[in-house]
Amino acid sequence: MPRGRFISLEGGEGVGKSTQARRLAAALGERGIRTVLTREPGGSEGAEAIRGLLLSGAADRWTIRAEALLFAAARADHVARTILPAVEAGKWVICDRFLDSSRAYQGVGDELSDTDILALHGIGSDGLLPDRTLLLHLPLDESSERAGARDGGAADRIGGRDAEFHCAVAAAFERFADAEPARFRRIDARGSIDEVSARLLASLADWLP
Amino acid sequence: MPRGRFISLEGGEGVGKSTQARRLAAALGERGIRTVLTREPGGSEGAEAIRGLLLSGAADRWTIRAEALLFAAARADHVARTILPAVEAGKWVICDRFLDSSRAYQGVGDELSDTDILALHGIGSDGLLPDRTLLLHLPLDESSERAGARDGGAADRIGGRDAEFHCAVAAAFERFADAEPARFRRIDARGSIDEVSARLLASLADWLP
Repeated sequence: MPRGRFISLEGGEGVGKSTQARRLAAALGERGIRTVLTREPGGSEGAEAIRGLLLSGAADRWTIRAEALLFAAARADHVARTILPAVEAGKWVICDRFLDSSRAYQGVGDELSDTDILALHGIGSDGLLPDRTLLLHLPLDESSERAGARDGGAADRIGGRDAEFHCAVAAAFERFADAEPARFRRIDARGSIDEVSARLLASLADWLP
Repeated sequence: MPRGRFISLEGGEGVGKSTQARRLAAALGERGIRTVLTREPGGSEGAEAIRGLLLSGAADRWTIRAEALLFAAARADHVARTILPAVEAGKWVICDRFLDSSRAYQGVGDELSDTDILALHGIGSDGLLPDRTLLLHLPLDESSERAGARDGGAADRIGGRDAEFHCAVAAAFERFADAEPARFRRIDARGSIDEVSARLLASLADWLP
């Protein structure tokens, strides 16, 4: 059984990750590839229970440190129970957000360093990285417009932050992509859903049958 | 405002930690010391929610790694929201289990090293250690008899393990006490509840007014 592939989609709020993850899984399925579509936080029974703790309650329910540990715990369960078994069974895992989102979001500010967040991932999940990470990029004014339309103006614990925060997150993703060009592909998320889907598929062209 | 004290009670199941923690807090209170009695996992609103995840479900609900991350997350919340505010307000915190229980329980087997567990505590809680740790010790046959009587034979996810496991846990606590004689006091937990309570209080004699 050849090993499958592990692909993560990353980017800020409102860039279309969830929609594009679904479409990518469907497009790969049409090509005869067995896929598993999953997301973080969550993606396994235990991780979904932790997701419930992470996304409910007041914005200051968790300290940054407790939040980072909870994300790492959810990710450890997700990796052990969903991602690795699927990849080892030859499937392609399409994951809506993964480690880089923790690095980008919990790494804003000076409470936790990128080294700390990578250390948690090392202990929890043996430091597993995606084979490829597709970073969806939109100018910030467009993504905040899309995110606002989707939420009807509401904001959950993670999404409801100010422009400065979202700008810092976007800059962090760019730094990660600069530092690991072999893993990252930058995807322009402007234009129609079909146009963006075509770009995602093209970014995997070297792997397609 | 002079800083308070942070005291943890440690030991295997059935050595009387919870009973003795309550009695110690009461005895200190009678001496005019403001105390906070707390326990792990739990001890703050967020940590109690995580405790619910940790103690319910099947024995294999969590991998060792996810479990260690959840304990560290609960501890980070407990330290930030309960322990440090109380100590900084001059109170004495009596905590039924703390970091050393994670080291002893999640450190059994070769899945996680003591270094890993200390690293999680470093990231989550700046590596906060108790000012003094009272290690209650009973011969294993007596403690398993007491634990069995208390549970009515039932066993939760953490308690329901075999003799070899409990022996490994007891040996780990002994190693920690050997390695940090300035922090640890060994307490003989044989005899009546009153006798053991007197030993705990005596182990703090140098601090008492």
